[in-house]
Amino acid sequence: MTIAPSEKAYVPFVSVDHMMQLVHHIGIEEMLAGLAEYIEADFRRWNLFDKTPRVASHSEEGVIELMPTSDGEVYGFKYVNGHPKNTKAGLQTVTAFGLLANVGNGYPVLLSEMTVLTALRTAATSAMVARHLAPKGSDTMAMIGAGAQSEFQSLAMKALVGLKSVRLFDIDAAATEKAARNLAGMGLEVVKCRSAEESMEGAQIITTCTADKQYATILSDNMVGSGVHINAIGGDCPGKTELAPAILHRSSIFVEYPEQTRIEGEIQQLDPDHAVTEFWRVLAGEAPGRTSAEQITLFDSVGFAIEDFSALRYIRDHIGGTEYYRDLDLLADPDDPRDLFGMLQRAAPCGG
Amino acid sequence: MTIAPSEKAYVPFVSVDHMMQLVHHIGIEEMLAGLAEYIEADFRRWNLFDKTPRVASHSEEGVIELMPTSDGEVYGFKYVNGHPKNTKAGLQTVTAFGLLANVGNGYPVLLSEMTVLTALRTAATSAMVARHLAPKGSDTMAMIGAGAQSEFQSLAMKALVGLKSVRLFDIDAAATEKAARNLAGMGLEVVKCRSAEESMEGAQIITTCTADKQYATILSDNMVGSGVHINAIGGDCPGKTELAPAILHRSSIFVEYPEQTRIEGEIQQLDPDHAVTEFWRVLAGEAPGRTSAEQITLFDSVGFAIEDFSALRYIRDHIGGTEYYRDLDLLADPDDPRDLFGMLQRAAPCGG
Repeated sequence: MTIAPSEKAYVPFVSVDHMMQLVHHIGIEEMLAGLAEYIEADFRRWNLFDKTPRVASHSEEGVIELMPTSDGEVYGFKYVNGHPKNTKAGLQTVTAFGLLANVGNGYPVLLSEMTVLTALRTAATSAMVARHLAPKGSDTMAMIGAGAQSEFQSLAMKALVGLKSVRLFDIDAAATEKAARNLAGMGLEVVKCRSAEESMEGAQIITTCTADKQYATILSDNMVGSGVHINAIGGDCPGKTELAPAILHRSSIFVEYPEQTRIEGEIQQLDPDHAVTEFWRVLAGEAPGRTSAEQITLFDSVGFAIEDFSALRYIRDHIGGTEYYRDLDLLADPDDPRDLFGMLQRAAPCGG
Repeated sequence: MTIAPSEKAYVPFVSVDHMMQLVHHIGIEEMLAGLAEYIEADFRRWNLFDKTPRVASHSEEGVIELMPTSDGEVYGFKYVNGHPKNTKAGLQTVTAFGLLANVGNGYPVLLSEMTVLTALRTAATSAMVARHLAPKGSDTMAMIGAGAQSEFQSLAMKALVGLKSVRLFDIDAAATEKAARNLAGMGLEVVKCRSAEESMEGAQIITTCTADKQYATILSDNMVGSGVHINAIGGDCPGKTELAPAILHRSSIFVEYPEQTRIEGEIQQLDPDHAVTEFWRVLAGEAPGRTSAEQITLFDSVGFAIEDFSALRYIRDHIGGTEYYRDLDLLADPDDPRDLFGMLQRAAPCGG
């Protein structure tokens, strides 16, 4: 005899397939804008959050991390791995899933894939920050690195900043072709460029998101003029950076969480006391954002647990009434909490 | 159009219902013995493990914890909450689920409920330790506290130590009745007792597992004679203990992981430098276990991540070829890892 668990025992689960269907149901640009709204709302209440550092398990091949956080009412964590050699084996270098739970009783309320969702939230975060820091009227972006994140970045900048033209460059021309193909017909002018320099012509926003190079110099100092916003995504773990240090010295640097960015971001190349601005303080009116047209603003983005939390909140609030999740029997929920054994016995095939 | 994910994208998932069916399929005593074997094997290679302390998020109502560990090839973590007031709301005070992943590529290989599984692994750990520390020929156990863990403890001691008689006591007679009813016909003599003292008559093993009392004294010094093994399960978080300190001073104390037990176990009542033996060292032949018939051995058990890891390994190894799991589409797995966006586009309802 199989006994159906009570309603409390079920956790809504969003699979990869359901996530992709949800994106199309909502519309990708609308979803990027919605995610940005949730992320901005959580940045504005930054001090409420329990900002536990991520818990990493390192091996020769890569790292597996748990990124927990809580706003006091809802708890969330993301499982994420980083294995650079996976690509050669036809696997994703990064996969992820996440969970939200009720702080009051500890019961999970959402389990979701987060490989697709992380791509969306990363782009939404970049565009949310660019909306506040990029020069007024920015309509052209250099997209350096045409990997898995490039299309998401382009569409998020279109949805939130009003981007009209994206100038793609990748050292692998096939990657540039792939991104251009994917972005065709999405309402953006797409220009395929043969060099990073070419991609930067006329661009007010420069996004760097290249693959796992050690201390690469994707942007050298002489390439970057004044009055631009640099959105640096690719420098996101120890030993991995993309910008020449001289650029950092000319820039006003904005970060998510300095404790983490100083280890993982572009600023690992700088002195530990080099001044940076926590971006949430700009939103809260506690620190200036862009103060002049000539200024170079730099968002040194490494990805932070609160962004994942916001993204999971968005999913939780948008799956209700849709077919894009199913209930998972993840929690034991006996009628009498002291009688777990009785529940087990009653589940015996012969009713035993 | 919905595109079926590749095989790599699927993670086997064991629901509560499947776990219960698996227990009946294997047989509860055989499963307890099998779990004990896996746990003992992992205790014997204790030094291999990455013993990250658990990551706790505390609130007024309770705690949510992540317990990660790794043996260098396999990574595992458990999500577990502890919310003492949940019982009043008809909820479990503790629910849990866990995951195993491949360290080499970071891909999860098992997601499983762990509320039922934790009950089994806790009992299996107790019995595995008692098999090594309890007096030879132990056949009678006092089971003080007839809550959710009591039946599992009794059956594990039967399966691993050869227990013949269990003497149940709980301050709530209804709980004693429940446990006696559940254990009827399972091959154990079950004696319902009206006091803790009565339950201890003739018992070589004393198991304490009572509910969430602050610094309770379930066992006072004069109640405990020589030549017994005490299996103390209930003292498992700061402020929660069950034994009078004088008993601890008369006992040889064995623990899982001192760093954790000194905070959570019975020994939080003792000086931080009070001598205790890590139980794995007994298995490894590095430390003595029971050295005389008169000795009081005490296993101050708080539950450790490696036991969960062993239990998840057992499940992973025993679901193959059964119907007691299903594949979960938890991971994005595009044909071209750089083309996550293309995968998303191809999943559009109109094939877009």
